[in-house]
Amino acid sequence: MARFRFQISVSVDGFVAGPNPSEDDPLGEGGMQLHQWAFRLAAWRKPHGREGGEVNASTAVMEEALANVGATVMGRKMFGGGPGPWGDDPCDGWWGEEPPFHNPVFVLTHHEREPLEKQGGTTFTFVTDGIESALEQAKEAAAGKDVALGGGADVAQQYLAAGLIDDLELNVVPVLLGGGTRLFDNLAGADLALEQVRTIEAPGVTHIKYSVSA
Amino acid sequence: MARFRFQISVSVDGFVAGPNPSEDDPLGEGGMQLHQWAFRLAAWRKPHGREGGEVNASTAVMEEALANVGATVMGRKMFGGGPGPWGDDPCDGWWGEEPPFHNPVFVLTHHEREPLEKQGGTTFTFVTDGIESALEQAKEAAAGKDVALGGGADVAQQYLAAGLIDDLELNVVPVLLGGGTRLFDNLAGADLALEQVRTIEAPGVTHIKYSVSA
Repeated sequence: MARFRFQISVSVDGFVAGPNPSEDDPLGEGGMQLHQWAFRLAAWRKPHGREGGEVNASTAVMEEALANVGATVMGRKMFGGGPGPWGDDPCDGWWGEEPPFHNPVFVLTHHEREPLEKQGGTTFTFVTDGIESALEQAKEAAAGKDVALGGGADVAQQYLAAGLIDDLELNVVPVLLGGGTRLFDNLAGADLALEQVRTIEAPGVTHIKYSVSA
Repeated sequence: MARFRFQISVSVDGFVAGPNPSEDDPLGEGGMQLHQWAFRLAAWRKPHGREGGEVNASTAVMEEALANVGATVMGRKMFGGGPGPWGDDPCDGWWGEEPPFHNPVFVLTHHEREPLEKQGGTTFTFVTDGIESALEQAKEAAAGKDVALGGGADVAQQYLAAGLIDDLELNVVPVLLGGGTRLFDNLAGADLALEQVRTIEAPGVTHIKYSVSA
């Protein structure tokens, strides 16, 4: 059975972005620290077109996160560009000419737009009729493979609150951000049961995978 | 070098007690779930005067938490009893005739009181001149062994904010409480660096140990 999966890096005090995020600094103050464990991995660098990197206990986690994904869902801000509507000169997001997804990506937005085809198998399809529709379209495009949720936190909260996420992996990074965007917020009324699937200790991060049921 | 250690169970969404705590239910709604992993361990049951229990990957963590502790510091509410001053009929806390500490316990309070000696090596000493004094007295009493912080969250936050905790172990339990008391709160201005020491996967809990430096 195909799963709807979400993995995200989080500080020990529960933030997925630091205080005062901006257009230029969407991760907020200190937020970049949450992703250092990934940036230094060969398993992350290669699909992002970068050389080098190391192999460690996080490698299997990263490979698992990238494997068997048939489609991706993400929020408008994760796609990139300014906050306004598409307009006459719509931005192409910040994923470059060959985005690292290599599968169909469904972008949640309030503004209609034609699909945007990139190199390497990534086509961005813009969905204006809600999170359930985006997930349905992604599942159909995934043709039996899993669907990955690319973020960000606001979209993840909506999917969590709706009880639609099957697998949740937290990459817990030993840093206190002291403020910012919490992953577990705006979930009032959601009745979610978590089961701990497995934990992996790696340099500078602990990976904990949960299966979620509503 | 003796360490000042704190270990606490925390929900995936960062709460150490659930919503609406009360005198009768100090852990709040759902808060008891945070401690089931410990209650079922033989290594927890034996020092608390209970029989049975299981041995699993948490056993070594529990044994480590109880070993080499020469003294304990705790808050007034963790000692137990009502919120008022000691009065004519001071309560004895909720730790019974033979408390599980078996070492000198320093209780932070605003109300002076004579020391209270219990069976099995536990004497409660009441400290009214602040967290640093309590820690100093405990370190002296520990005579080279470590000092454990017994909680609760408000006292832990004061010690964290003051940069006085050396070792922090989080027992991360796969439950979402959705509200309640956060461990990482009221820490404005504290500049703490965490280093991940080790992670242990156990049934229904992940133990992550950090060393903390201010």
